[in-house]
Amino acid sequence: MTAFEPLAETSSARNGRGPGQDRSLVVGVDIGGTKTAILVCDRDGRQVARHIAPTALGAPDRAADAIASLVLAALAQAGGSRGDVRVVGVGVPGRVDPARGEVSLAVNLGWQALPLGPQLTARLGRPVVLENDVRAAVLGLHRRRVFGDLPSLGLLAIGTGISAGGVVAGELHRGAHGRAGEIGHAVLDRTGPRCACGLRGCLEAIAAGPAILARALDAWTAAGTGPAAGGSEPPGAEAVFEAAAAGDPVAGDIIDTAGRAIAWGVHVLALAYDLEHIVIGGGVSHAGEPFMAPIRRELDRYRAESPLAAEILRPDLVQLLPPGADAGVWGAVTIAREALGLGSGSLGRPAEPPAVAPQGREVGQA
Amino acid sequence: MTAFEPLAETSSARNGRGPGQDRSLVVGVDIGGTKTAILVCDRDGRQVARHIAPTALGAPDRAADAIASLVLAALAQAGGSRGDVRVVGVGVPGRVDPARGEVSLAVNLGWQALPLGPQLTARLGRPVVLENDVRAAVLGLHRRRVFGDLPSLGLLAIGTGISAGGVVAGELHRGAHGRAGEIGHAVLDRTGPRCACGLRGCLEAIAAGPAILARALDAWTAAGTGPAAGGSEPPGAEAVFEAAAAGDPVAGDIIDTAGRAIAWGVHVLALAYDLEHIVIGGGVSHAGEPFMAPIRRELDRYRAESPLAAEILRPDLVQLLPPGADAGVWGAVTIAREALGLGSGSLGRPAEPPAVAPQGREVGQA
Repeated sequence: MTAFEPLAETSSARNGRGPGQDRSLVVGVDIGGTKTAILVCDRDGRQVARHIAPTALGAPDRAADAIASLVLAALAQAGGSRGDVRVVGVGVPGRVDPARGEVSLAVNLGWQALPLGPQLTARLGRPVVLENDVRAAVLGLHRRRVFGDLPSLGLLAIGTGISAGGVVAGELHRGAHGRAGEIGHAVLDRTGPRCACGLRGCLEAIAAGPAILARALDAWTAAGTGPAAGGSEPPGAEAVFEAAAAGDPVAGDIIDTAGRAIAWGVHVLALAYDLEHIVIGGGVSHAGEPFMAPIRRELDRYRAESPLAAEILRPDLVQLLPPGADAGVWGAVTIAREALGLGSGSLGRPAEPPAVAPQGREVGQA
Repeated sequence: MTAFEPLAETSSARNGRGPGQDRSLVVGVDIGGTKTAILVCDRDGRQVARHIAPTALGAPDRAADAIASLVLAALAQAGGSRGDVRVVGVGVPGRVDPARGEVSLAVNLGWQALPLGPQLTARLGRPVVLENDVRAAVLGLHRRRVFGDLPSLGLLAIGTGISAGGVVAGELHRGAHGRAGEIGHAVLDRTGPRCACGLRGCLEAIAAGPAILARALDAWTAAGTGPAAGGSEPPGAEAVFEAAAAGDPVAGDIIDTAGRAIAWGVHVLALAYDLEHIVIGGGVSHAGEPFMAPIRRELDRYRAESPLAAEILRPDLVQLLPPGADAGVWGAVTIAREALGLGSGSLGRPAEPPAVAPQGREVGQA
């Protein structure tokens, strides 16, 4: 991981303060499709402040201004200032080039070739490191030992898109071009629905949130059924889970199809990587057990059909990311700490208080 | 990688020879389904002798005797003896536990829970390290820089089975339970032909040698066509490539289906791992261009349909393992050298003479 100024240059050196006054804060920023979370931690990885706001970043060239404002607000909340910050870690939902601090492509944010790292450094005067959000999250889960002290860990994120992040032999696996874990575009059905990527039948085109919703809306429109279109906001995939829970058979079928597709992805990942655990997270996974049940049923079918599959798909292989694990923003803190060579510090201490749930302390910004 | 006696105990110490007389040989053994190759190298990784024999190992409890005899014959050819050997590396077509020196399961050899490492050590009096053959081969290709000096490299072996080996961030990726790369059992078609593993439509059940042959034999029998059953040996998948080359449309279709399936596997591997190159090898790949052409055509279709696929499936991503690369036995030497901490030595020197092709210097043993 590369930052944009020497990390050895401490904030105390910059500010002419003595080392005793150096608070050495580390800031994590997790930019989500709808919300951006900021976590301010001390040198030992303990949470000092947390700030959350809707992701209302405006045009790409204004994004750095908006993010810098959020960081400054979180620092004020922590009783600190820019000069106290050692490094800022940013998790971005898209492809990033950590060496250049560039967001290569973040489709859902409308960003392309955005030099977010240097832009934030210019505004905050501090080093900034960037990473893909799923990759940062799995590193955070690993370093915090959320699922134990493991040599390997995978995170399969089912949200607006589908991708995986992996820690292999204790290290974050980025791949030759920073594209490892793009499993959402593995082809499940060569004749299936067209994916945004251009191929047909990608895992993402069947099981990501927008795919689940689009199939349900199509079916409901065709049948003249489905939940009434109330409210001003367009519904998300959660509407399909709600309809299924209310007994809608079309919604149930769509969720079952998505679950079987995700189980297929889990099997492929398990075969390819042989990971200790594959954690399932992402926005769609917030539906909880109704989301997990069809995945588990399909994995059980694989196990029943094949002794090898039963061996590969160990009972404890798949774990649902616990609600409130706040994996994204802790991941952003973790990449910042790794850039400083700080190790896991108190990140993994059992005494670490559970992360505050997003709805806990929202501070509006937009 | 663990051996069964301290590797620091050199052969000179064992034999009471002075260091000047210590030849410090490293032996690689590649156990194939039909042939076993032995390579004797000096300390710098230069070939001293090569020995090849049919794999006619008899019952599992006699396998170590047969392999030890081959090793001793190769050593005699090299003008050396057991006492000159630092370590023996063995590549096995199956699942191994390197820490215990056990072959957990090698279906095609009929081995299960075979303590081959300790058995060979008992017969040869030297340390023995075991590894899966595909994994050893990819490590050898990487360390010898056959495709350049790369941070990552994959090998997809299409033979009696299908599996992959990978070097990630410069290190062999074994996985949490030594099962990384079992991509042959990823499910391409949940309603496809039954795989030996129990699932339906695994990549291996469509594109491995026995699957290609079985489909052709079925089709030929049903149609009353196909090549005449001549000779005493059962035909292999090469008979299907020969028939296709002679214009048999059934054979052509089967090879095309296999090629599309392998392209699918390449895409999945490329998405999951983001490797510098994916080398395609294994017995079926020896058919060369008739084998590669349908794979390339399908990869081109992916690229034409999807800009992302075009980016993932870079033109130089897929490489055919050159004939005579002798990847298996050099892989066995490589795992032996790695166990000694010897590094790549002369393994990668451009001056390294090309490996002798298997048919070059066969010494019958069975």
